[in-house]
Amino acid sequence: MTSRSSQPEGRSDGGHDIHGLLDRFARLGATPGGGITRLCASPADGEARDLFAALLGEAGAIVTTDGVGNQFGRFPLAGVEGAPLVMAGSHLDSQMRAGRLDGTLGVVAALEVGRTLMGRKRDGAPFDADFCAVNWTNEEGARFRPSLLGSGAYAGHHDAAFALSRRDDDGVSLGDALEAIEYRGRDAAPAVPACYLELHVEQGSVLEEEGATIGVVARNWGALKVEAVFEGEQAHTGPTRMDRRRDALLAAAHAITAARALADRWPGRLHTSVGRLLVEPNSPNVVPARVALSLEVRSADDAVLAEAGRFADALLATAAAEAGVGLTIATRSERPIRSLPQAVGDLVSFCAETSGHRTLRMDTVAGHDALSLLGRCPLGLIFVPSVGGVAHNEREATHAADLDAGRDVLLDAADRLCRAGGSPERATRSPGSAPERTERRPGSAP
Amino acid sequence: MTSRSSQPEGRSDGGHDIHGLLDRFARLGATPGGGITRLCASPADGEARDLFAALLGEAGAIVTTDGVGNQFGRFPLAGVEGAPLVMAGSHLDSQMRAGRLDGTLGVVAALEVGRTLMGRKRDGAPFDADFCAVNWTNEEGARFRPSLLGSGAYAGHHDAAFALSRRDDDGVSLGDALEAIEYRGRDAAPAVPACYLELHVEQGSVLEEEGATIGVVARNWGALKVEAVFEGEQAHTGPTRMDRRRDALLAAAHAITAARALADRWPGRLHTSVGRLLVEPNSPNVVPARVALSLEVRSADDAVLAEAGRFADALLATAAAEAGVGLTIATRSERPIRSLPQAVGDLVSFCAETSGHRTLRMDTVAGHDALSLLGRCPLGLIFVPSVGGVAHNEREATHAADLDAGRDVLLDAADRLCRAGGSPERATRSPGSAPERTERRPGSAP
Repeated sequence: MTSRSSQPEGRSDGGHDIHGLLDRFARLGATPGGGITRLCASPADGEARDLFAALLGEAGAIVTTDGVGNQFGRFPLAGVEGAPLVMAGSHLDSQMRAGRLDGTLGVVAALEVGRTLMGRKRDGAPFDADFCAVNWTNEEGARFRPSLLGSGAYAGHHDAAFALSRRDDDGVSLGDALEAIEYRGRDAAPAVPACYLELHVEQGSVLEEEGATIGVVARNWGALKVEAVFEGEQAHTGPTRMDRRRDALLAAAHAITAARALADRWPGRLHTSVGRLLVEPNSPNVVPARVALSLEVRSADDAVLAEAGRFADALLATAAAEAGVGLTIATRSERPIRSLPQAVGDLVSFCAETSGHRTLRMDTVAGHDALSLLGRCPLGLIFVPSVGGVAHNEREATHAADLDAGRDVLLDAADRLCRAGGSPERATRSPGSAPERTERRPGSAP
Repeated sequence: MTSRSSQPEGRSDGGHDIHGLLDRFARLGATPGGGITRLCASPADGEARDLFAALLGEAGAIVTTDGVGNQFGRFPLAGVEGAPLVMAGSHLDSQMRAGRLDGTLGVVAALEVGRTLMGRKRDGAPFDADFCAVNWTNEEGARFRPSLLGSGAYAGHHDAAFALSRRDDDGVSLGDALEAIEYRGRDAAPAVPACYLELHVEQGSVLEEEGATIGVVARNWGALKVEAVFEGEQAHTGPTRMDRRRDALLAAAHAITAARALADRWPGRLHTSVGRLLVEPNSPNVVPARVALSLEVRSADDAVLAEAGRFADALLATAAAEAGVGLTIATRSERPIRSLPQAVGDLVSFCAETSGHRTLRMDTVAGHDALSLLGRCPLGLIFVPSVGGVAHNEREATHAADLDAGRDVLLDAADRLCRAGGSPERATRSPGSAPERTERRPGSAP
């Protein structure tokens, strides 16, 4: 084995080379702009799932796929039936023209943790929990809505039938799309784990600005997500008198500008957006009859979120009234502001600080699969810095050393958990194997 | 033959039963809401073209299709090579969920005029011009842009290669779409006619409000059509700070509301609209990176149109600046305000008034294939009332008696033109055969 530790992208110490793996996954759904488009249950997603399953199998995992396409790779570390389970993962699906790290980092890192822990088991490490790497279906919500469909079904927030019946803009259901790529599984999902971990890129710029390497997520921002439909009257844009038009797109435009203005009531504390608009019939010379609009309002402050939610409801109604069109709220869902379990955060901080990484307790503004499991099991969400805070963009990037740091912290936390029956409290006090890695320095042999 | 003249929809006097034909065409691309969706070069358009060609052939026409799919049915009335040509028609393509009359009326009426004139020729009428019924390709601009592609190619405003290379939102070219329905023709188009006539529903409410049955179009409104592209930066709607977002959809929303406000500067004299918006990537949790927007500005006043055009350019730039995004003007085309030939209008008025119909000289706000031929040959555009002014809508309707009136005026004008070498001046003084029809009354035998 050649020492390549001066080139983090090519390191191959014991097999957990996440850089080479990230490169391999980045080829599946690659875009000309250097990112990926790997929509849920697309052919490219199928290829990424095939690669994940093959790598899991090579690494000694038992690979299963549940009824909504979640992929699990269980590494039998404990050597006994019914051992507690430590789970880690994220998602392989992406937005359109997205970055290569979002989701994939967490899946690849979990795979490499599993491979490494299997090696340590062969070397005699005394594990008393199994480890499971997971790829959740449709985290993004780009092709099928809502987001977090796979982890949400696993956690019992909705049933599998609901998830499978979601349709994309061409009317294809998730169930049929999974069948087409042969990932509508028949296996039972594993029981809820003793502890769940997820490594993810921050997608914001807080870590970079604070000079920290490891973000220990302590809380999630709350979110209000509204799918509104404006119903106007289809008409000719030429002869139809202006005062007789009932323009659904004009209503949507009023709503979009009002939603942006709403954010300025609480600068820095409220994020608002309209990211999606479906216009019908969408012809240059036809007054739009129907526009479906996706509005999001996010805040970390319960009072702000509640008041902003009332403003959001009102601005939609006002926009409809201004354009003289009808309004239907198709869906309105709230994700509450919640704290993540302290004990898992303490474990992650302990592992990071033991390795000399500067940590920061922080919020997640974005949703992640980990949040689906909140209240179901102890869980930890670990961030590494996003260069310039760029996310959902082909230019998304994280420095190689930060990726390594995230992978090492995930590995250390998982290792400790798998020696402590999955208990984060016990894991923080367990010996682990961190010093083995932190002694490694550029130029030294592994 | 049974007399059914008390039921205008079923009249069958001499074969020119446009109501039965309109019913037959309305079944091709029929929508559940009672309208049609017959996008250009779709399978439904192919079926409508097949029916048109078959009916032309049965009626004794020589049917040809040119390189951009325009269909011509030449009725050899004059009996000599190189006879002048009188042409009439419109288009069989439609908007999404549109009415059954828009375009189809003009095609069906031209077909029935041809059939009737052939009968009169057999009965010994002395024609000295041939008649040609035409179906122009892609009038609507719903699937392929710009609109008026077929008549524009025929009139030489752009070449066939340009028209065939236009692509729909799925990237399919007009050429390939026409091949697929077997209507990319190989025939030469007929030479520009001595006179062109088009019967169309008004699509506005002027005739209804004025109590007139036949609109004689004297002028078209000018139009400015702009395809603008806002280029922002794709980002996550969650963690991305509001002040760092460059939201292309927010720019579009500013433009849409500003365009609507612009119309209020000249109430009743300026129509503005944004009918089409393409949002990328169009995901609920992604700040839109790119929005293409179709803006239209229409007026019958040159000074208003020029000033409104400057405002339109400025509002797009302002919208881009407000959202901090880039702006590209992909296309910017102006249709000037022009008068239609007086002589053809006089002929149409003469025919209508001879039959006792109240006429109105009026504007067309919408574009029509006839306008493509302005400056190329004498032409006339004949309107019949739209119930409630409803257009580009499944509820589009015209009273049966008004449809009959339009058909009769078109027939009379075409008959006179075909006895006058295609000259509108001579045709107005020719004997024609109008009295034969105006003597017919409900309840009387044909």
